[in-house]
Amino acid sequence: MGDLLDRLRAALPAEAVVTDPDVTVSYARDMAGFCEAGAPAAVVLPRTVEQVQHVMRTACELRVPVVPQGARTGLSGAANAVDGCVVLSLVKMDRILEIDPVNRIAVVEPGVVNAVLSRAVAERGLYYPPDPSSWEQCTIGGNIGTGSGGLCCVKYGVTAEYVLGLDVVLADGRLLRTGRRTAKGVAGYDLTRLFVGSEGSLGVVVRAVLALRPAPPRQLALAAEFPSAATACAAVCSIMERGHTPSLLELMDRTTIRAVNDLARMGLPETTEALLLAAFDTPDPAADLAAVAELCTAAGATAVVPAEDAAESELLLQARRLSLPALERVTGTTMIDDVAVPRSRLAAMLDGVAEIAARHGLVIGVCAHAGDGNTHPVVCFDPADPAAAARARASFDDIMALGLDLGGTITGEHGVGLLKKDWLARELGPVSLDLHRSLKHVFDPYGILNPGKVF
Amino acid sequence: MGDLLDRLRAALPAEAVVTDPDVTVSYARDMAGFCEAGAPAAVVLPRTVEQVQHVMRTACELRVPVVPQGARTGLSGAANAVDGCVVLSLVKMDRILEIDPVNRIAVVEPGVVNAVLSRAVAERGLYYPPDPSSWEQCTIGGNIGTGSGGLCCVKYGVTAEYVLGLDVVLADGRLLRTGRRTAKGVAGYDLTRLFVGSEGSLGVVVRAVLALRPAPPRQLALAAEFPSAATACAAVCSIMERGHTPSLLELMDRTTIRAVNDLARMGLPETTEALLLAAFDTPDPAADLAAVAELCTAAGATAVVPAEDAAESELLLQARRLSLPALERVTGTTMIDDVAVPRSRLAAMLDGVAEIAARHGLVIGVCAHAGDGNTHPVVCFDPADPAAAARARASFDDIMALGLDLGGTITGEHGVGLLKKDWLARELGPVSLDLHRSLKHVFDPYGILNPGKVF
Ligand SMILES: Cc1cc2nc3c(=O)[nH]c(=O)nc-3n(C[C@H](O)[C@H](O)[C@H](O)COP(=O)(O)OP(=O)(O)OC[C@H]3O[C@@H](n4cnc5c(N)ncnc54)[C@H](O)[C@@H]3O)c2cc1C
Ligand SMILES: Cc1cc2nc3c(=O)[nH]c(=O)nc-3n(C[C@H](O)[C@H](O)[C@H](O)COP(=O)(O)OP(=O)(O)OC[C@H]3O[C@@H](n4cnc5c(N)ncnc54)[C@H](O)[C@@H]3O)c2cc1C
Repeated sequence: MGDLLDRLRAALPAEAVVTDPDVTVSYARDMAGFCEAGAPAAVVLPRTVEQVQHVMRTACELRVPVVPQGARTGLSGAANAVDGCVVLSLVKMDRILEIDPVNRIAVVEPGVVNAVLSRAVAERGLYYPPDPSSWEQCTIGGNIGTGSGGLCCVKYGVTAEYVLGLDVVLADGRLLRTGRRTAKGVAGYDLTRLFVGSEGSLGVVVRAVLALRPAPPRQLALAAEFPSAATACAAVCSIMERGHTPSLLELMDRTTIRAVNDLARMGLPETTEALLLAAFDTPDPAADLAAVAELCTAAGATAVVPAEDAAESELLLQARRLSLPALERVTGTTMIDDVAVPRSRLAAMLDGVAEIAARHGLVIGVCAHAGDGNTHPVVCFDPADPAAAARARASFDDIMALGLDLGGTITGEHGVGLLKKDWLARELGPVSLDLHRSLKHVFDPYGILNPGKVF
Repeated sequence: MGDLLDRLRAALPAEAVVTDPDVTVSYARDMAGFCEAGAPAAVVLPRTVEQVQHVMRTACELRVPVVPQGARTGLSGAANAVDGCVVLSLVKMDRILEIDPVNRIAVVEPGVVNAVLSRAVAERGLYYPPDPSSWEQCTIGGNIGTGSGGLCCVKYGVTAEYVLGLDVVLADGRLLRTGRRTAKGVAGYDLTRLFVGSEGSLGVVVRAVLALRPAPPRQLALAAEFPSAATACAAVCSIMERGHTPSLLELMDRTTIRAVNDLARMGLPETTEALLLAAFDTPDPAADLAAVAELCTAAGATAVVPAEDAAESELLLQARRLSLPALERVTGTTMIDDVAVPRSRLAAMLDGVAEIAARHGLVIGVCAHAGDGNTHPVVCFDPADPAAAARARASFDDIMALGLDLGGTITGEHGVGLLKKDWLARELGPVSLDLHRSLKHVFDPYGILNPGKVF
């Protein structure tokens, strides 16, 4: 270990290598529960590509594990340290290198915070869509590592669709450039997409070329109240089947609504079983909302409340964004699941989750990117009660099993990390898993990059 | 070889294995010039996944090369036979298995013709955007193999963005399922995208889950005449910079315009140096076109002619779609390049191509997916004149070098195949090429899948 630190420091400024255990422990884990985390040997905070290459070359020669890290807002343990590792935190590489309105691209370092980029491009009349609710903290590197989504995905897609090219430091310190700066390109295999969602297990992203869009008009939203999850989900299906493309189509169940009211006195309707939020950023959003309101009513909505203006719409979104922190306060802690199903199975998913909650005697609030079929069942439990924690863990597994049964996936946007490792093998099956292992071996023959994660 | 045929026939219907050389020779090559093609030992036309698995298992055991094939409309030699290979033509696996409007997906076999799928989904109010000009012939399997584009990409993106999941028969006959049927999903590495654009070198696609969109309104187009390529390209940049999203933004140069008129008496304006076609499929296309017309005029357009209606707009698109066949008649044959550059470099690209044409004493017509910076310089030459052919080949290389100098890629949508193999190495560089080789080895350790293509 002395050797490791000496060699790291040989080509890094003193302040870039942190070894004080009181400090390094604060880099040990992301926001996921139920995941072990080890003690890092050092936390390195590089500022240049060359410094990252030095770290990887050193770690490779000494066969020391390296855990790439962004803001540690991850929800699957994917950024958790392992004993004796180098935590490679990219947060100091946080420059926006270029914003190019003609080519509609931005070039950024990995530590740029999502909201910082979003605001910077908005000033130029542009839009970087991926908007995880953690956007004020999480980094573009972490978004690429997990393949993050958010509220806007139903219209604009996920992070993967906005990554045109990457600079990646490989496990042995070599620098790889993937992809392109052009709108189109099919030269060679799509290595760019292989890195997106690979959770730091194939290489360290040190630069990204991102696609931007023109800024859309401000969105206008409505809230629709439903007497059951099933009727709300039927509305979702008919909205999508009729060819609407809302900029947001979110669902909150009763538990979530109450939690949000408790946290922020939002005045959401507590007697309703499911609240649907829909928004449009089209040229005539009021007309689109009126059509959607009709479909909601036809599906059984008891009330449909359009926002008066963009500001009121933003309040509704705020309510949705507060869902996770609000549910966390219900019983002290939560486990957030992230199962996506075909949207036609959304009702079956929600009913199944209710059944699982009842069976385990747990509170499970559900919020969902309903338009995408991406549910977040949030299991609430008292962390001080080991029996409750065990039931929470069991219900979590039941939820993933249900998602797979319904033709879905165990993770729509939060990733696999440590939390869902065992389940990934079930979802992929042996042929795919075998190929995953071989691919990992190509990029990381000594297994030093974020070992123990994903599979 | 007797052994190969016996073993193939053991689990295939007689008519699925073709060995008559008069017939097999017609499967030897795609539409690209300047590419060698070998003589297949057999052409196999499977109808089921199991039959494909049987072919791959047999070929793997006997170490016989296999060349997957769609409709052979490719423009890079990627589907060309190699001596003694099995041509594995997927054209008989042409069933549309499912069209699901709620989940907005289609599930298809690889031999489905692009236009057949497009029409089938249109009947359900849905839209499968990728629209290569060859859409009446080319197959979805071939589109996935090459990562095809088309006219609509400037708004709707390329094939890659519509492939959610694949069933792939691997080199050893195992069946791999990748991706998902859900709108979102980040479970494991993105193997789906690795296959898109891999030109049959990693596996045989036997089923695809494709994303659909709601059918947009019919598009309305305009044509704008410019006194120079530079002014037309300036208009393209200002249209994109001002945040417009046309459903099509195409450029034809004078040579192309004349060729199209000669072929189809279209009455396009022959005195203009560059014609820009723009279309919108928005709720109010006339308003969007008016804004674009103003930008064209500001950039120097000498005339802007809006189409009267959707039918007239379709005629303009027809003219654009006829560009390649029309240019082919100029001197008897053509080489079609496919260089994409950042759209801000489009003018430099077109000027550079004009200089290359002059230097080599050749006619080079250019049509371009201008909104994407994706140019198709079409080198016209007399195939009976070996000196002209040599100059054509040299100019082709100069065009790719120019594209790379301008920060572009050697192929925006047509792929690498045999034609651009040497150039791919230049674009990718040694680190990427090294990884490409390793990835190929993972999927195809004996090198039997489409050997000699891509790199
Ligand atoms: C309140 C809250 C709300 C959330 N809402 C959403 C949501 O709406 N949608 C959503 O998708 N997620 C959401 N998340 C999860 C989380 O914010 C995202 O996964 C985010 O992308 C993580 O970014 P990060 O910078 O914190 O990365 P980290 O958690 O630090 O790391 C995530 C992964 O990326 C890898 N990584 C980080 N940087 C790099 C790099 N430069 N190179 C290679 N690998 C790297 C890490 O090794 C790790 O595997 C939420 C989390 C919280 C706490
Ligand atoms: C007139 C004309 C216009 C064109 N316009 C365009 C255009 O606008 N945009 C564009 O992008 N292209 C265009 N092309 C090129 C061509 O049509 C596309 O590349 C198309 O995708 C090829 O499809 P195909 O079925 O003919 O495939 P093929 O040419 O038979 O094969 C293409 C590649 O895919 C592989 N492949 C085929 N099927 C499978 C499978 N099931 N599994 C694995 N690999 C497979 C082959 O091995 C080969 O590498 C045009 C061609 C012509 C002749």
